[in-house]
Amino acid sequence: MKYLLVLLLAGLTSTAQIQKEQLNLMPWPQSVVLNDGNFTLTKNFKVNITGNPNPRIFGGVTRFLRRLDGRAGIFFEQGFITKLNEVPNAELQINCTTGGKIGLYEDESYHLDIKQNKITINATSDLGALHGLETLLQLLQNNNTSFYFPNSQISDFPRFTWRGLMIDASRHFQPIDVIKRNIDGLAAMKMNVFHWHLVDDQGWRIEMKKNKKLIELASDGQYYTQEEIKNIVKYADERGILVVPEIDVPGHGSAILTAFPEIGSKVITLNGGISEKNIQGTAIATYGVERNAGIFSPTLDPSNPKTYQILSEIFDEVCPLFSGAYFHIGGDENEGKDWDANPKIQEFKKKNNLATNHELQTYFTMQLVPMLKKHGKQLMGWEEILTKNMSKEAIIHSWRGANEGMAAGQSLVDAVKKGYKTVLSNGYYLDLMYPVESHYLNDPMPKGVNLSTEEKARILGGEATMWTELVSSTTIDSRVWPRTAAIAERLWSAEDITDVASMRKRLDVVSFRLEELGLTHIRNRAVILRNIANNQNIKSLNEFSNVCEPLKGYTRNSGGTEYQMYSPLTLFADACTADAKDALVFNDAVNQYISNKSPENKAKVESFLNKWIAVNRGLNELSASAPLVQPVLPLAKKLSDASEQILLALNNKSTLKADDLRKLIEECNTKDHADVELAVYAGLKKLI
Amino acid sequence: MKYLLVLLLAGLTSTAQIQKEQLNLMPWPQSVVLNDGNFTLTKNFKVNITGNPNPRIFGGVTRFLRRLDGRAGIFFEQGFITKLNEVPNAELQINCTTGGKIGLYEDESYHLDIKQNKITINATSDLGALHGLETLLQLLQNNNTSFYFPNSQISDFPRFTWRGLMIDASRHFQPIDVIKRNIDGLAAMKMNVFHWHLVDDQGWRIEMKKNKKLIELASDGQYYTQEEIKNIVKYADERGILVVPEIDVPGHGSAILTAFPEIGSKVITLNGGISEKNIQGTAIATYGVERNAGIFSPTLDPSNPKTYQILSEIFDEVCPLFSGAYFHIGGDENEGKDWDANPKIQEFKKKNNLATNHELQTYFTMQLVPMLKKHGKQLMGWEEILTKNMSKEAIIHSWRGANEGMAAGQSLVDAVKKGYKTVLSNGYYLDLMYPVESHYLNDPMPKGVNLSTEEKARILGGEATMWTELVSSTTIDSRVWPRTAAIAERLWSAEDITDVASMRKRLDVVSFRLEELGLTHIRNRAVILRNIANNQNIKSLNEFSNVCEPLKGYTRNSGGTEYQMYSPLTLFADACTADAKDALVFNDAVNQYISNKSPENKAKVESFLNKWIAVNRGLNELSASAPLVQPVLPLAKKLSDASEQILLALNNKSTLKADDLRKLIEECNTKDHADVELAVYAGLKKLI
Repeated sequence: MKYLLVLLLAGLTSTAQIQKEQLNLMPWPQSVVLNDGNFTLTKNFKVNITGNPNPRIFGGVTRFLRRLDGRAGIFFEQGFITKLNEVPNAELQINCTTGGKIGLYEDESYHLDIKQNKITINATSDLGALHGLETLLQLLQNNNTSFYFPNSQISDFPRFTWRGLMIDASRHFQPIDVIKRNIDGLAAMKMNVFHWHLVDDQGWRIEMKKNKKLIELASDGQYYTQEEIKNIVKYADERGILVVPEIDVPGHGSAILTAFPEIGSKVITLNGGISEKNIQGTAIATYGVERNAGIFSPTLDPSNPKTYQILSEIFDEVCPLFSGAYFHIGGDENEGKDWDANPKIQEFKKKNNLATNHELQTYFTMQLVPMLKKHGKQLMGWEEILTKNMSKEAIIHSWRGANEGMAAGQSLVDAVKKGYKTVLSNGYYLDLMYPVESHYLNDPMPKGVNLSTEEKARILGGEATMWTELVSSTTIDSRVWPRTAAIAERLWSAEDITDVASMRKRLDVVSFRLEELGLTHIRNRAVILRNIANNQNIKSLNEFSNVCEPLKGYTRNSGGTEYQMYSPLTLFADACTADAKDALVFNDAVNQYISNKSPENKAKVESFLNKWIAVNRGLNELSASAPLVQPVLPLAKKLSDASEQILLALNNKSTLKADDLRKLIEECNTKDHADVELAVYAGLKKLI
Repeated sequence: MKYLLVLLLAGLTSTAQIQKEQLNLMPWPQSVVLNDGNFTLTKNFKVNITGNPNPRIFGGVTRFLRRLDGRAGIFFEQGFITKLNEVPNAELQINCTTGGKIGLYEDESYHLDIKQNKITINATSDLGALHGLETLLQLLQNNNTSFYFPNSQISDFPRFTWRGLMIDASRHFQPIDVIKRNIDGLAAMKMNVFHWHLVDDQGWRIEMKKNKKLIELASDGQYYTQEEIKNIVKYADERGILVVPEIDVPGHGSAILTAFPEIGSKVITLNGGISEKNIQGTAIATYGVERNAGIFSPTLDPSNPKTYQILSEIFDEVCPLFSGAYFHIGGDENEGKDWDANPKIQEFKKKNNLATNHELQTYFTMQLVPMLKKHGKQLMGWEEILTKNMSKEAIIHSWRGANEGMAAGQSLVDAVKKGYKTVLSNGYYLDLMYPVESHYLNDPMPKGVNLSTEEKARILGGEATMWTELVSSTTIDSRVWPRTAAIAERLWSAEDITDVASMRKRLDVVSFRLEELGLTHIRNRAVILRNIANNQNIKSLNEFSNVCEPLKGYTRNSGGTEYQMYSPLTLFADACTADAKDALVFNDAVNQYISNKSPENKAKVESFLNKWIAVNRGLNELSASAPLVQPVLPLAKKLSDASEQILLALNNKSTLKADDLRKLIEECNTKDHADVELAVYAGLKKLI
């Protein structure tokens, strides 16, 4: 009877009007109007498409139906949608005026209108319609027995035209299914650019039919075939996403130079012969695929005509694989050490009146412009390519900030003021494991800078970057998601959508829904923890991972040499993520307790402390037959010790001196354990 | 101090000699000798390869190193292995005399010798060496701080030469990554055949460059490109696995005939004109890709020369994609309805002296033999191809049994007695959701049949079959694994390795280790449950799924029409698996209690009953905002009601009559809820 009542009540609440704040939309649309009433989902639900869309809409709607049905379990009668105007009386009517083109500045707007018996999506192109379908999926509500959409009107369009994610497939190769599921995630978040970092010191990842040595010597057998690349471009196109490939030159050249040492800049002086007949000469250096992380000296020789011949051949083969209009040539972090040490290159600089290595690099980069233009591609590069003679057509990718001793995003302002288009990645570096809040509040439009309308228009948008020094195909999703969804909102939604608490609440739901697309950020945590626990119960490990975060910035792999590219990424830090789940909840509980020392508030705090004491006990038990748990124990013990003493202190039973207690808590702030840091340290500190 | 003691004790136990029964090897090797002492794993661990192996060994060893390091987290110094004799003093020395060829009758034996400071794998070919590496990985032990291999000598070879898994990629298309990870699983279980069921009524899955209509009209856009297929063949080859493709003809022809209705057998009589001038004629029937499950009439016309022309073209294009020597042409479940109704076909039968439809099908099949031979392929077909004029070179795939009203495996005996080679699949149908025990004890070598040595030799082995009517890419692994590992043991290990309890114990560990290869059978359960729970806590659902099993046999999709191929497979039954985790434990607890009614034994049983009462409560709470939980509630309530009353009865407090209690428990045996059945029913019944 009790349950019957619960059910009835739940049934009743369903008819209550949902409030805007309850919607878990992300990115938040430009305009949302909620009306009374609902559209209830039944098995008769069907979709009809009219207008003149690109055929990608058919697959898009078919996938939409499958996802909706997977959630609702209603057994829709409609299976595949392959034609225009197949079901004129369908409940969901989609109309697109024209076929969308994959690229920048497309009209991606849509209007979604939900009424009691009819849903309508009107969009200029299928690209907007696909966005509308994602919004519709996010609008799905339910009571205890059925699913429905709240009657509403949504008008929506993006704030920026470049809303991207970069994945580095060089440092840790990322198989095709990783790329596909991340593209699915981008589409769900209304993002439209996938930047594929395909070449770096740690490997060349593109099948080459002409210059085969790149694959044979510099890929460890891990590369994408040309057909796979074309399939990804098609897969992305079907989801409204532009693929921007990157081949990073002239620095980050270890892989390329492993295959073609003859176009490297390094010179080796040879001393041979016998004392009577001393022989001296120079020889070509040899290179190897880099196994460490960091900035390395292997750099292409800009004075060597063969460099341009090989690059031209490479672009001739690679460019046609991509249908988009942009090609990223990297250009970052070239320190020019090998240039300085090479007399031939010094001579070349003099001869060509190139005063600095920057000018030399500009000379080099400018040679690439026509190679790309030949294939209809515009050059893009990291901010270091921004020098005085750089072509105004180049897009400047702004990335440096405090970690590089620079003002954050300064290059973005410089670029637009000099007339360049630009994309922001500084502040969106996912590999640094910073909290989502920092990414969310990082606006591509700089604050406190006076920019003209034209200058502002040159800020194309932003791009989250997933560098993969410490990321495997098992862990990558947990670094990209759900944080990239918050970046997606920054790039799509209105400038004033900045309520962090609202974002966090919605992100929780979005994160859960991203699993539906095959993303593995939630499920794979258990996989790693099971491995660490050696097939024992993972409860304690999981709870501990809820208060630990991987070391931030570049501290986990200090010097870039602790981890080689083949080192295990199956450790506790790999199971942990930024924004540790319990940290925020605990810190809130502490704040509440401090402002009001009610028994309830105290109990909340105490339950955490007791949990952590139990976690420590549990981890010790686990560790008896799980060596990978050992590195976690010292930090767990420190947290447990501190928790015990704080519990006593909260109840005025502590025999410790205040200083000793403070010391105990301070101990929890060490960063020398298992590559993680304790995310509840701040909260603990407040308690004393 | 207490924990220190625990650690010390754990440290001590490590030096205790491990017993054979403690090893979790699967398939169990032919000979295992354990010696005193251990080989301890350190970061210096390296591998060296000598002899004359196929280069596949290099990738195999590199993957081995990565998996071992992933488990041990030791940061091995060795990254990639690419050459023979690179590290002559390596701890693990592998020697192979020759390069292994992918196919039947290869020498797959290996000798593994583990000593204090040296491990040696000697094998005729790299195929045996790869098996040896899998055994080595399974031998890994650990104490509290380190990993080691027990000193031992293992000699091993397979009992059968055909140890396969079939995946049906037609009914539910299975993306490339599903195929790859399942091939990884096969290799880990020392299996050597992947049978790829590529064409059936529900879809044509092979890119065709000539007869493009097959893809355009009969694939729903879901197919493998030719390059993807070649890559899979290569991927399988690198792991020692033969790929056997299947194009199912002449029955199961809906997809082919959707593209080419002109080679179908169905005739349509047309009546037209006006009453004064009656026009009658016949027309070609049209076909559509089938959306339901079952046996359908669309069948190729064996009397039509164009049938053979198209098939010949198809084989010319498809055969070269596969390097193996076998091609499966299906041939099953052709009921000949459309043949009987087609006058032209009846005439053809008469003209060619083909008395029955079976003879007509043999005529048809025999036309395919030279088409395949042209490409060096031998024909294989389901047992229906076994008719009197069938080529003796054909391999007979035995599949029918009680479900088809036949004696299990009868066709296997018939085949070998008639001189055919044969492979057994009857008893290995994974889609039927039967318990692992039934598969495990199903030996390809028939019991109680007098077979000569030659006849026995014609029994090549067996093949697990994964039909995908009710399987998505999210759930497929949980149907294939870990049960296929038990089948692998049946096909590899000695005939007398039949201890079910030992198999179950080892299977638990093997199942856990299969995650390392990327198999998703464990992790994806949580994904489905989270969807059902609508992002609420899945504890109750998970516990309930531990006592529920999907309906067995063909009862879940009664008539084949409840589920269309696009119906949701995100339901509770999809999260459940055969061999429900808690059922066996509960039944054991009941048996123990019945034989000894000690308080401890009683408490064990009671804890289950109390858990299920709590589960019902939990599910009701969940259901308030999770419609997909609703279908689960009636069964949960029945289990809870029965549990409550049994608890009372166990404590002599029940007020129910024995008959009423019996009735309550009987209610738990209904199969009309949420497509699952209660796996603890038998145990419950014993309690009264």
